Amino acid sequence: MLHLQSESTTQWLGQVDAHLDEILIDHAHCERKAASTAMNLMDAYTDNRAITREMTVIINEELEHFHMVIEILDERKIVFRRQGSAPYGRKLNSLIRKTEPDRAVDRLLTASLIEARSCERFSLLSGHLKDRDAKLAGFYGSLFESEARHHTTYVRLAEEFASREVVRERLDQLSASEAEIIAAGCDLVRMHS
Amino acid sequence: MLHLQSESTTQWLGQVDAHLDEILIDHAHCERKAASTAMNLMDAYTDNRAITREMTVIINEELEHFHMVIEILDERKIVFRRQGSAPYGRKLNSLIRKTEPDRAVDRLLTASLIEARSCERFSLLSGHLKDRDAKLAGFYGSLFESEARHHTTYVRLAEEFASREVVRERLDQLSASEAEIIAAGCDLVRMHS
Ligand SMILES: [Fe+2]
Ligand SMILES: [Fe+2]
Ligand SMILES: [Fe+2]
Ligand SMILES: [Fe+2]
Repeated sequence: MLHLQSESTTQWLGQVDAHLDEILIDHAHCERKAASTAMNLMDAYTDNRAITREMTVIINEELEHFHMVIEILDERKIVFRRQGSAPYGRKLNSLIRKTEPDRAVDRLLTASLIEARSCERFSLLSGHLKDRDAKLAGFYGSLFESEARHHTTYVRLAEEFASREVVRERLDQLSASEAEIIAAGCDLVRMHS
Repeated sequence: MLHLQSESTTQWLGQVDAHLDEILIDHAHCERKAASTAMNLMDAYTDNRAITREMTVIINEELEHFHMVIEILDERKIVFRRQGSAPYGRKLNSLIRKTEPDRAVDRLLTASLIEARSCERFSLLSGHLKDRDAKLAGFYGSLFESEARHHTTYVRLAEEFASREVVRERLDQLSASEAEIIAAGCDLVRMHS
């Protein structure tokens, strides 16, 4: 359903255990960036009614998630601050083709894959933290459904710009690249490292 | 209260009468751009709690306004489409200083002036259209209050980055420039032409 071609490793979960604060701070940034990505798509394709409608829903939900994570940071006395980014987003963006309508398809599909990976990791975190930190586990469980829906929305919107078959084929290509980017890993401990 | 140094002219109202469709389409773009500006500020100053809280409110409201205008366009069978922009936004942006924290002050104050000018024009439109188009007049009347509040919010947030006196002095300078930009006019008929 999430169109991912790899599963996250126990190595990543080990990093999470050692640096949970870093992950939580990064998570807040991820939610804000997700809202920002949706706003950029709304700006770029503002005359597409399906885009403006769905991006508005996603922007509102991602901003709500952002403030939920900030509240968790506050409860845990973790100071929200800027952080270096994992190369994940930059590497995915570099795969976006330059010419429309390919560009629209790729922007929407890379957004769909970021949502899918978040979704997979939230689910993993929810199970991993269940016995140790029931509250945080419950939070990640509660986000799973909306991020899965965002994934589906982005894939469906790509079909505004290309046929279902073309979208499916490109999603397979991009999702293979996404799995490679995740497999390459990164020294920083991040939601998408 | 709005810190504007000029009033809109009857010449502008004459343009509105001749090109109401153009103004309505531009208005939808203005609401989306207002949301986008707030998102950019939230990205740039994401570790400032007052900014992230207030920008979230503004983003939600501007997106709501955007969809309200789109509904009005639909009712009037006006097709929402891309348009050339008035130079207003670009000229205001060119006044923003490059170095922080001056840059933050200027970004917030130019945003505050755009809100103020929108507010002034909505009020003017509301009165101007009252007898001919009560529904549209009512709509513009209803937006007045939130845009005035956005103006005040942006000015107050500038004080996160400089003293009240410095902010007030810079607001006077920028607002003088804003009045000049409006006075120079523009061939396109726009909400900020
Ligand atoms: Fe989210
Ligand atoms: Fe999401
Ligand atoms: Fe607005
Ligand atoms: Fe506003």
